[in-house]
Amino acid sequence: MTRTLITGGLVVTAAEETHADVLVEDGRVAALATPGSQQWTADRVIDASRKYVVPGGVDAHTHMEMPFGGTFSSDTFETGTRAAAWGGTTTIIDFAIQSKGGSLRAGLDAWHEKADGRCAIDYGFHMIASDVNESTLKEMDALVEEGVTSFKLFMAYPGVFYSDDGQILRAMQRAGQNGGLIMVHAENGIAIDVLVEQAVARGHTDPRVHGEVRKALLEAEATYRAIKLAQVAGAPLYVVHVSAAEAVAELTRARDEGLNVFGETCPQYLFLSTDNLAEPDFEGAKYVCSTPLRPREHQAALWRGLRSNDLQVVSTDHCPFCFTGQKELGRGDFSKIPNGLPGVENRMDLLHQAVVDGHISRRRWIEIACATPARMFGLYPQKGTIAPGSDADIVIYDPRAEQVISAETHHMNVDYSAYEGRRLTGRVETVLSRGEPVISQRTYTGRAGHGAYTPRSTCQYLN
Amino acid sequence: MTRTLITGGLVVTAAEETHADVLVEDGRVAALATPGSQQWTADRVIDASRKYVVPGGVDAHTHMEMPFGGTFSSDTFETGTRAAAWGGTTTIIDFAIQSKGGSLRAGLDAWHEKADGRCAIDYGFHMIASDVNESTLKEMDALVEEGVTSFKLFMAYPGVFYSDDGQILRAMQRAGQNGGLIMVHAENGIAIDVLVEQAVARGHTDPRVHGEVRKALLEAEATYRAIKLAQVAGAPLYVVHVSAAEAVAELTRARDEGLNVFGETCPQYLFLSTDNLAEPDFEGAKYVCSTPLRPREHQAALWRGLRSNDLQVVSTDHCPFCFTGQKELGRGDFSKIPNGLPGVENRMDLLHQAVVDGHISRRRWIEIACATPARMFGLYPQKGTIAPGSDADIVIYDPRAEQVISAETHHMNVDYSAYEGRRLTGRVETVLSRGEPVISQRTYTGRAGHGAYTPRSTCQYLN
Amino acid sequence: MTRTLITGGLVVTAAEETHADVLVEDGRVAALATPGSQQWTADRVIDASRKYVVPGGVDAHTHMEMPFGGTFSSDTFETGTRAAAWGGTTTIIDFAIQSKGGSLRAGLDAWHEKADGRCAIDYGFHMIASDVNESTLKEMDALVEEGVTSFKLFMAYPGVFYSDDGQILRAMQRAGQNGGLIMVHAENGIAIDVLVEQAVARGHTDPRVHGEVRKALLEAEATYRAIKLAQVAGAPLYVVHVSAAEAVAELTRARDEGLNVFGETCPQYLFLSTDNLAEPDFEGAKYVCSTPLRPREHQAALWRGLRSNDLQVVSTDHCPFCFTGQKELGRGDFSKIPNGLPGVENRMDLLHQAVVDGHISRRRWIEIACATPARMFGLYPQKGTIAPGSDADIVIYDPRAEQVISAETHHMNVDYSAYEGRRLTGRVETVLSRGEPVISQRTYTGRAGHGAYTPRSTCQYLN
Amino acid sequence: MTRTLITGGLVVTAAEETHADVLVEDGRVAALATPGSQQWTADRVIDASRKYVVPGGVDAHTHMEMPFGGTFSSDTFETGTRAAAWGGTTTIIDFAIQSKGGSLRAGLDAWHEKADGRCAIDYGFHMIASDVNESTLKEMDALVEEGVTSFKLFMAYPGVFYSDDGQILRAMQRAGQNGGLIMVHAENGIAIDVLVEQAVARGHTDPRVHGEVRKALLEAEATYRAIKLAQVAGAPLYVVHVSAAEAVAELTRARDEGLNVFGETCPQYLFLSTDNLAEPDFEGAKYVCSTPLRPREHQAALWRGLRSNDLQVVSTDHCPFCFTGQKELGRGDFSKIPNGLPGVENRMDLLHQAVVDGHISRRRWIEIACATPARMFGLYPQKGTIAPGSDADIVIYDPRAEQVISAETHHMNVDYSAYEGRRLTGRVETVLSRGEPVISQRTYTGRAGHGAYTPRSTCQYLN
Repeated sequence: MTRTLITGGLVVTAAEETHADVLVEDGRVAALATPGSQQWTADRVIDASRKYVVPGGVDAHTHMEMPFGGTFSSDTFETGTRAAAWGGTTTIIDFAIQSKGGSLRAGLDAWHEKADGRCAIDYGFHMIASDVNESTLKEMDALVEEGVTSFKLFMAYPGVFYSDDGQILRAMQRAGQNGGLIMVHAENGIAIDVLVEQAVARGHTDPRVHGEVRKALLEAEATYRAIKLAQVAGAPLYVVHVSAAEAVAELTRARDEGLNVFGETCPQYLFLSTDNLAEPDFEGAKYVCSTPLRPREHQAALWRGLRSNDLQVVSTDHCPFCFTGQKELGRGDFSKIPNGLPGVENRMDLLHQAVVDGHISRRRWIEIACATPARMFGLYPQKGTIAPGSDADIVIYDPRAEQVISAETHHMNVDYSAYEGRRLTGRVETVLSRGEPVISQRTYTGRAGHGAYTPRSTCQYLN
Repeated sequence: MTRTLITGGLVVTAAEETHADVLVEDGRVAALATPGSQQWTADRVIDASRKYVVPGGVDAHTHMEMPFGGTFSSDTFETGTRAAAWGGTTTIIDFAIQSKGGSLRAGLDAWHEKADGRCAIDYGFHMIASDVNESTLKEMDALVEEGVTSFKLFMAYPGVFYSDDGQILRAMQRAGQNGGLIMVHAENGIAIDVLVEQAVARGHTDPRVHGEVRKALLEAEATYRAIKLAQVAGAPLYVVHVSAAEAVAELTRARDEGLNVFGETCPQYLFLSTDNLAEPDFEGAKYVCSTPLRPREHQAALWRGLRSNDLQVVSTDHCPFCFTGQKELGRGDFSKIPNGLPGVENRMDLLHQAVVDGHISRRRWIEIACATPARMFGLYPQKGTIAPGSDADIVIYDPRAEQVISAETHHMNVDYSAYEGRRLTGRVETVLSRGEPVISQRTYTGRAGHGAYTPRSTCQYLN
Repeated sequence: MTRTLITGGLVVTAAEETHADVLVEDGRVAALATPGSQQWTADRVIDASRKYVVPGGVDAHTHMEMPFGGTFSSDTFETGTRAAAWGGTTTIIDFAIQSKGGSLRAGLDAWHEKADGRCAIDYGFHMIASDVNESTLKEMDALVEEGVTSFKLFMAYPGVFYSDDGQILRAMQRAGQNGGLIMVHAENGIAIDVLVEQAVARGHTDPRVHGEVRKALLEAEATYRAIKLAQVAGAPLYVVHVSAAEAVAELTRARDEGLNVFGETCPQYLFLSTDNLAEPDFEGAKYVCSTPLRPREHQAALWRGLRSNDLQVVSTDHCPFCFTGQKELGRGDFSKIPNGLPGVENRMDLLHQAVVDGHISRRRWIEIACATPARMFGLYPQKGTIAPGSDADIVIYDPRAEQVISAETHHMNVDYSAYEGRRLTGRVETVLSRGEPVISQRTYTGRAGHGAYTPRSTCQYLN
Repeated sequence: MTRTLITGGLVVTAAEETHADVLVEDGRVAALATPGSQQWTADRVIDASRKYVVPGGVDAHTHMEMPFGGTFSSDTFETGTRAAAWGGTTTIIDFAIQSKGGSLRAGLDAWHEKADGRCAIDYGFHMIASDVNESTLKEMDALVEEGVTSFKLFMAYPGVFYSDDGQILRAMQRAGQNGGLIMVHAENGIAIDVLVEQAVARGHTDPRVHGEVRKALLEAEATYRAIKLAQVAGAPLYVVHVSAAEAVAELTRARDEGLNVFGETCPQYLFLSTDNLAEPDFEGAKYVCSTPLRPREHQAALWRGLRSNDLQVVSTDHCPFCFTGQKELGRGDFSKIPNGLPGVENRMDLLHQAVVDGHISRRRWIEIACATPARMFGLYPQKGTIAPGSDADIVIYDPRAEQVISAETHHMNVDYSAYEGRRLTGRVETVLSRGEPVISQRTYTGRAGHGAYTPRSTCQYLN
């Protein structure tokens, strides 16, 4: 039995800020105590004075090695989870994909194979259902039983991932019964594709057009539609990557009515805008993702939503494509630019910066980045907090360190950073995963294969 | 030149209640004057003392001889327009239908043929576009030019009339340019069909199930979706047969934002309810229409919408099917019941009863039943009012007469009445169509073929 | 019997735009007819070709010779009504004032004396109740009976006109029974006076501070409070001079709920802004009125409210004070500037400009400026329309004439114009008051004393 | 140093549910550990197997020995805090009262005297400001400094506690600067007193009339007014004893806009209704409090508000008056019934019943009853949670025990229970206050004077 003692830090969880020593035994938190009050001995003692001791981040939305438009997102489970660890994230939930005509099981197996033995930190899977039929519905029950308890459906990307409203309704009905949580990508893809086609036909092919045709109103529309379908089905709903103020308003309205409706946003929507999409020389392509970046004034609505709990989670939707060779596929036609941004390494730091900037409180930082994603997807209190019995996924965070984000220094396998040159206050110093040091004083001390697949229970946020 | 003088009545229009003599020359209103002030002579003098003199009704939503589910609605243009005249309606706008794979033109021609030479009163056409493609879009321009200025799209009935959101968006964009008005049947038909299939599979086959599966929330959803698509397209929107309080709420919200969004409801939603759908012995089938009848408590929202102008028009959606032989097609499976109710003869009277009951004012009666439908669909001031220059489509209405609605006495070609046995105060006494008496002291004095096709200008309600 | 014939114009009312000849007999509209269709002879023929023939304006909010802060508004009933006529207004409703401790009757008598024999056009009175007690409540019944059917209460001006919520509630209850209409000045004067005092104490004494301390939020608050009190009392409500977008929102919300709540705005809120209040050299004082001018961006909400009928009336709140000698009383202390602007002469023209600018339709112009104020305050159809039997209060309006507003050319007795130098398209050419020419081809042909006191029936807008 | 060890229980806080041993040293929580993992010795060991270990309740709204209408609330600090302890509440915040013309200091001193040496559990004070003037405002700063950080103002009770909107605004401005939190009793007392007077004049004197005249709309109005005043002042707001659905809606709206607005409700509004007020034989008097009980259908809105965090706190507003001799003062005139209910002993149990009934989760129970009131009023984490360093105010709660509420068995000094005969699941077993057993296995082991005055820091809930 290995014992680790973390002394003198400020333990910050979603609920508490406590000066406490933390005792770790066998990969789990064994005890918390007022500093120095207990005569604990330990194999390893970490001095956390003047540091925060926070739960490792839970990034509930990543896409490692994801096929998209003939290429693959550039981070493998190995490179991506290592980068996550560097950024203070100790659990990711990635998306296994059902192929059209294929089974959920086959998709899940394929993703297990990609991840198995390669991850630096723990991981779970959501399931993307791109072919909802009777057989798929039955498989959903089985997957929930074995720990894949959330299913993503797309209202966008017709012909690829798209499900029609009937398929969505059926999946929601099933989830209403088996405890699963339906996640939706809420954009009216049918209407958007008309606007895309028209724009391209008019010769409007720059990356910034991506942001113009994917209208905020069509995100709001799909959000409202998903809410109504969930209401008819009697099922909860989780809307991924909310970016438009109008969509936040629909979530707010639904939550005011007492519905079990949840919303996630991402750092890119909080820190970037259509200004980036409009960067010249095709640089805007770096910022092409869907839902798209919005005009700067939408950010205030997102921050307000995070404060008022109308948005509950910040995930990254990490889905990196190199500028050279990948993003470039869309030169001359924005609709061919692979959709996605890198970010798994930056989330905890960017959100800490939001604390520094006064957007959110310190506890809310941990809540939206660690505790709530864990609760939402059935990992709490194993993940997302520091409490007796929890996995010792712990980050020693230096709130005063300064850093500058750059592709030159980041650890994600992608040739650019969406936040290049941005100065941040706060930095990860040490990261434990189930008690094992993965990052030690800013040195990588982990290993591929330490990270374990983690089956999940069902959403813990249902009223 | 024939001169008709109507003396001593209370002329009620959407705007005024005036004791005035009305002089008709050559089928048009030539003058209004304070009673007795002018020494007018006339070929025909109608004494309207103690009566209302009101514009003939404009019913903007009828389906004569419409094919549906292997049968046809039971009123021809001859029987249907005659019944309309009996009920004080002097103009109908019927729906010509584009068949799948066919052109708008072919559909319009077919409907012209059905109507030509057969109508007792004037008529115009909307166009149902059930196959929106490039060629259809081009045809829309031509039709607007020649007086078919409104196009109905269905968000329900997949495989039949259904248009997807891309088709709807394209049609709206076109209408935004050519001045056309897009009308939508706002129900999420894709989702509803899932619920229908599930209900039938469970053996829930009674007519009342029709009202249960076509959820109010799915009407609200489609209404909101149509609004957002119209907003993206920069086009006005007219939502037909609004029946759910939740849909009214969406229209109200849109109008509060200043959008050019309009809503129609029908007498059946104002006077009937799911109680009727639940009538035993398959009698509920008489009340099967879509959108469906709603629980009684929705009526208050509809009346309030009519008072607050969040709903602007009351049409009938007249689409009669005989109980015997037609409605009966759905015995054992509610989804096979032809959708539609008779009503073209009852609208003006039912709405007058609403005046008596205190739901609306006398002027609002005329506004929602005559003036606004005429303005909305480009017929004003030719139709819908009594003013110098207007067509002399005039009803002498006895506000004190009593009647009982019954299939035994009505003139529609259908074997039941949706309002059987209902006592009403108020009755049509005499009806002029372009100055010609069609109903004279409750005798039919019109003729098939008097009614003329009336091309329309564009919607006059755009902000 | 004098007969006047107006030929060839476009008769525009709230409801219709009709090319028609208008026959006037004995001061009333006798008949309308299609142009040239009747062989009418007349004593006076007015050629209105290429002109509009519109109802004379009804300005439901003026303050002639009103005492305020030790001075009087600078227009007498003689100068003020003459100026009104020049501007196409043929009826004003002025405010008689109950003094603290005095009776309604005494106040009304005093105002009758001011007006009697001096007016160029017809006039009625509202009653300002500044001392609501048992005796006042009883008097209200009597006044309603004799044609003073509306009562204004102030939520502002503590110590002067202010009524507390209990007094307002009692007055509303009484109005709910006797048919009277309660008008409120909706600003939280108790809170505003704190902010005024604090600003002055801080040495913030410029006119623009007037706009800063009278917060939009405190107008919204009082508006909402008045609505709730009216709802408790079961009475209708008319909110005068709405200027803040937030207040419009409260009216919209109440109307969406179906409440009998009405709102008036004024040209100054539609065309001027806090930019004017900030004009240097104390020029801002010219624009000091309460509610105050708001930042420019509020205007869009007011126009939208007028289009959507969440605001129903545009009155002037005409209450002129000369810059020299009157407005100057407030040099060094904005709170001493007499509150009020001149405008009775400009309203019809400014609103016609709004038609030209696309804010409202031609018919809506007449509705908000003539028809609705007449209906709201029980003068319709005697005033506010052109229909057989109506008073022949008619304006021949040249929609193509151009003019520049200036104090040098206006007819109001005040040494400045709030719209100095503004170019407008459209101008009054001829004005009839009960058939008598008051303005003839831009010459004043009226006389003091022609205008008659006009008792009013109760509000015609109650659902 | 005394050590207490609580073993084997489920530690439930607002944030976590953890099976953990809790070690108490010197009146504080020293450590939490996974059960049995540490070899702790202790002077006292409490076996909490199959029990909940929860933070002691924080009741932020009590009135011990409060003068009202010539009598005093019947619990002294001694009897009231003892009863609180029986019910699992370990901290109360009572209201010291400024008398008209007196200083805050004098009021506070008087309340200190009442409480000092008499309390069984810890206590703090809010300050009721009933005479807001310059001197009062200055005193507020001093009180915030010394730990009285919240100030209650009344929009009701004119002539007694009532502050006008100017006074409220000034107090809010001051609080905006000194960190104080303004609490308001939000009812339009001016308007309500009119309705009271009218009802009594009509002979409507039964207790149920109390509920009829204190209109929900007038609670909503005052709530909205307080929100706007706070917004103008730039200060946070806490609305006490919210009972009307319409008031919850206003709070929801404000919070959707991101305002720092908070709402408290009480068990009586969640569990009782106007049905109780209507109990015959003057029994309704037992339920007279203000805001009043509402019709049963309001309860759903309150529960939804508690779930959605639009309401944050449940306090008791404990203010008992005996039926005999006190409530009876209002026989024949409901307005003379002392306002208030007993409840300090029942709150934790009733809210646990809400967990059993499915209204709220277990963690939310602790959040609204312990953690949030502590945070709201500056007592966290000393009070309201179980974490290293917190006061060892701990309740061992048996979730399976059954009890029946009755005046015969309760410990409050009042001759009736508002919940007489109600069966509940769950009961307090043992209560520690700063580590000392106050209730031990349902025996009172505390003492008057153990409870200490606890100064508070400022509200910890400001965005």
